[in-house]
Amino acid sequence: MTSIHQNLVNRRSKALGPTYSHFYENPLHIVRGEGVWLYDVNGKKYLDCYNNVPSVGHCNPHVVDAIYQQARTLNTHTRYLHETVIEYAEMLTATLPEDDYVALFVCTGTEANDLAYRIASTVTGNKGVIITENVYHGNSTLVTELSPAEGRTHPCPDYVAEIAAPDSYRGKVDANEVDKAIEQLAAHGIKPAMQLIEGAFENPGLFTPDKQYYQDMVTKTHAAGGLVVIDEVQSGLCRQGENFWSYQNSGLTPDIVTMGKPLGCGHPLAATVVKRSVIEKFGKITDYFNTFGGNPVSAAAGRAVLQYIHNENILENVHDTGIHFRAGIAKLQEKHTIIGDVRGKGMFIGIDLVKDRTSKKPAPVETTRVIELLREEGLLISYVGVEENILKIRPPLIFNKEHADMALGMMANAFDAI
Amino acid sequence: MTSIHQNLVNRRSKALGPTYSHFYENPLHIVRGEGVWLYDVNGKKYLDCYNNVPSVGHCNPHVVDAIYQQARTLNTHTRYLHETVIEYAEMLTATLPEDDYVALFVCTGTEANDLAYRIASTVTGNKGVIITENVYHGNSTLVTELSPAEGRTHPCPDYVAEIAAPDSYRGKVDANEVDKAIEQLAAHGIKPAMQLIEGAFENPGLFTPDKQYYQDMVTKTHAAGGLVVIDEVQSGLCRQGENFWSYQNSGLTPDIVTMGKPLGCGHPLAATVVKRSVIEKFGKITDYFNTFGGNPVSAAAGRAVLQYIHNENILENVHDTGIHFRAGIAKLQEKHTIIGDVRGKGMFIGIDLVKDRTSKKPAPVETTRVIELLREEGLLISYVGVEENILKIRPPLIFNKEHADMALGMMANAFDAI
Repeated sequence: MTSIHQNLVNRRSKALGPTYSHFYENPLHIVRGEGVWLYDVNGKKYLDCYNNVPSVGHCNPHVVDAIYQQARTLNTHTRYLHETVIEYAEMLTATLPEDDYVALFVCTGTEANDLAYRIASTVTGNKGVIITENVYHGNSTLVTELSPAEGRTHPCPDYVAEIAAPDSYRGKVDANEVDKAIEQLAAHGIKPAMQLIEGAFENPGLFTPDKQYYQDMVTKTHAAGGLVVIDEVQSGLCRQGENFWSYQNSGLTPDIVTMGKPLGCGHPLAATVVKRSVIEKFGKITDYFNTFGGNPVSAAAGRAVLQYIHNENILENVHDTGIHFRAGIAKLQEKHTIIGDVRGKGMFIGIDLVKDRTSKKPAPVETTRVIELLREEGLLISYVGVEENILKIRPPLIFNKEHADMALGMMANAFDAI
Repeated sequence: MTSIHQNLVNRRSKALGPTYSHFYENPLHIVRGEGVWLYDVNGKKYLDCYNNVPSVGHCNPHVVDAIYQQARTLNTHTRYLHETVIEYAEMLTATLPEDDYVALFVCTGTEANDLAYRIASTVTGNKGVIITENVYHGNSTLVTELSPAEGRTHPCPDYVAEIAAPDSYRGKVDANEVDKAIEQLAAHGIKPAMQLIEGAFENPGLFTPDKQYYQDMVTKTHAAGGLVVIDEVQSGLCRQGENFWSYQNSGLTPDIVTMGKPLGCGHPLAATVVKRSVIEKFGKITDYFNTFGGNPVSAAAGRAVLQYIHNENILENVHDTGIHFRAGIAKLQEKHTIIGDVRGKGMFIGIDLVKDRTSKKPAPVETTRVIELLREEGLLISYVGVEENILKIRPPLIFNKEHADMALGMMANAFDAI
């Protein structure tokens, strides 16, 4: 670490305090971004396979210009009429043709999930929540309790019940887990307000159970009086190819869909999209207002992202690049026995690293080592999973086959080196 | 209402659903903002005495340019090193010289208050909250329970105790209310994690109790084991003149200060500023990460606002304009007996409208009428208070004496007309 670097780390620690962590043992000091590339202070460039927030590319000029033009014209709130927020809501809900939805705008995925609970608990009159083990849904007081992967520091409260993740690689897919969760809540006299589902089971390990599993979960939760909420904060907006939203791959029709990270390509924009029949019940009881949520600049950013996705055939790109990328990783798997499983859809790919393929015992130390080696190579990725042994690949949606080939070359080097 | 207007109202209702309300019987359709002025779709201009979010003026070019330059260069998150977020945190905490504070960045005032509770409840081990009647602190599941003015649809929960507002106009200032709140919590076996105080008691009615009242509240809350949290989302950032933050007027030193609306001049930026001694306890137990909180663009927006405030002597402007404005309203009070009281500090002014000055009985119908008349005149203001009878004047901080004179002229017309 250079002295300039150390000086910045020290200033950061003093000004922001001890709750701020950073990636990598020796933190990255990034100063510029463009497309799928990030550049550090020394001019070294990194191919970005980690950041999904810059959905249509770092500093996408179409989005930056939309933000600039609106910011210099007007930025107020939803208590005055403004056409852009209406048009954006229309465009966004048009991507969910399965039912009649409305859009409520907030600023973060946390706010989106927190509002989903307010709506679900208010309209059902219940207070329980069914979640999956090792998920992350956000950082508010309420949502932290629904996020065992990070932030929760006390035992699981009575109103929350966790089910095992559908780990098809290790043969643990069982929708009857939902029955056990409902019974567990009932033992405390609680009924479920909602089941909250990560669209790609991304934090437990990027699992892709079949449609029957989803259908069984929905049937059981609805029968117990709860709503089904899909958290698309990571899995949505074309991330999985084939469809705009992950739930469309699984064949279910959620009551509420929460959206966040990639919606504004970095601008703080998120949404809670709700079936009209549900929000009408909520609207009879109370209003919702969020000062910054749905302001004209945020709406312009979100609209620019959707326009870019439509105009540049981004969904098709994700689908095709994803197939190409996974095929390349499958070839690496032939050579490297540490790669136990390659899974995922579109450009949300998990690589399960194991001690050996018979025991399937997780290899977390090697996972961290691969991530650090790839950083040296110039490739940014991360990990997920209870055992922290699953490489997570989640690049900007404009990542193409050439980028995938570059990434595969660097991954080959890293796997050779461990 | 024109058919174009009606069409937009209908589209809005369909796309955003029934929980979105708007200001005024016939909603405003604003299309452009500049400085202290807003322009509707027909070109009519409105002097803005309502919006505090555009703190240094609608579409302030210095802030817009900072957002644009950073958005086209890089927008990531706090898990990479970036100098701007550090520099902004240093500049922001330098405005609170009374203690050693660190800044945690979030996106909304709601998130700021919600995080304050997470910190306070974690470090104290308590779960109770003391609030003031008819306050508004935000819209998350937790913070809605601390916001009787809006959103809470069920009875006050056991862990929340409300105290009467310090209404000096009607002779009801009593810090012993805090003792009663502590006893009320204790009756449920609960101790306070924090007392959460609106910096200007703005929603109960913009009251300005003396320093002794604040000191007594702090002493009592600390003695009961709770932290003191000041919500500066509305009252802070020079709003009251004299000092940068409202708590500096009252002589107390808070454990946590929450900030929001005006920080980014419309960009979704908020902060939870915490005494280092407090955050170090929290940091030993858990981390905090917010994907959008403290991103380089948000930090650049916040830094630009602080730079503008320092370079343009905004604090002095608020102080001087506020005195001039209140003096003008006091003159209106001589003529109009409906004006029972004029109060507030800097450019956060409350005008208490009453049936008569002896009974001090609130006049809410006339308050609504004045607001609608002023909209016709071309002046935007709003109301606060349990009885919805207190006109709230809270213009952008660049509002000057000439603007105040224009506003006073329109107010004279409105009071003549009711």
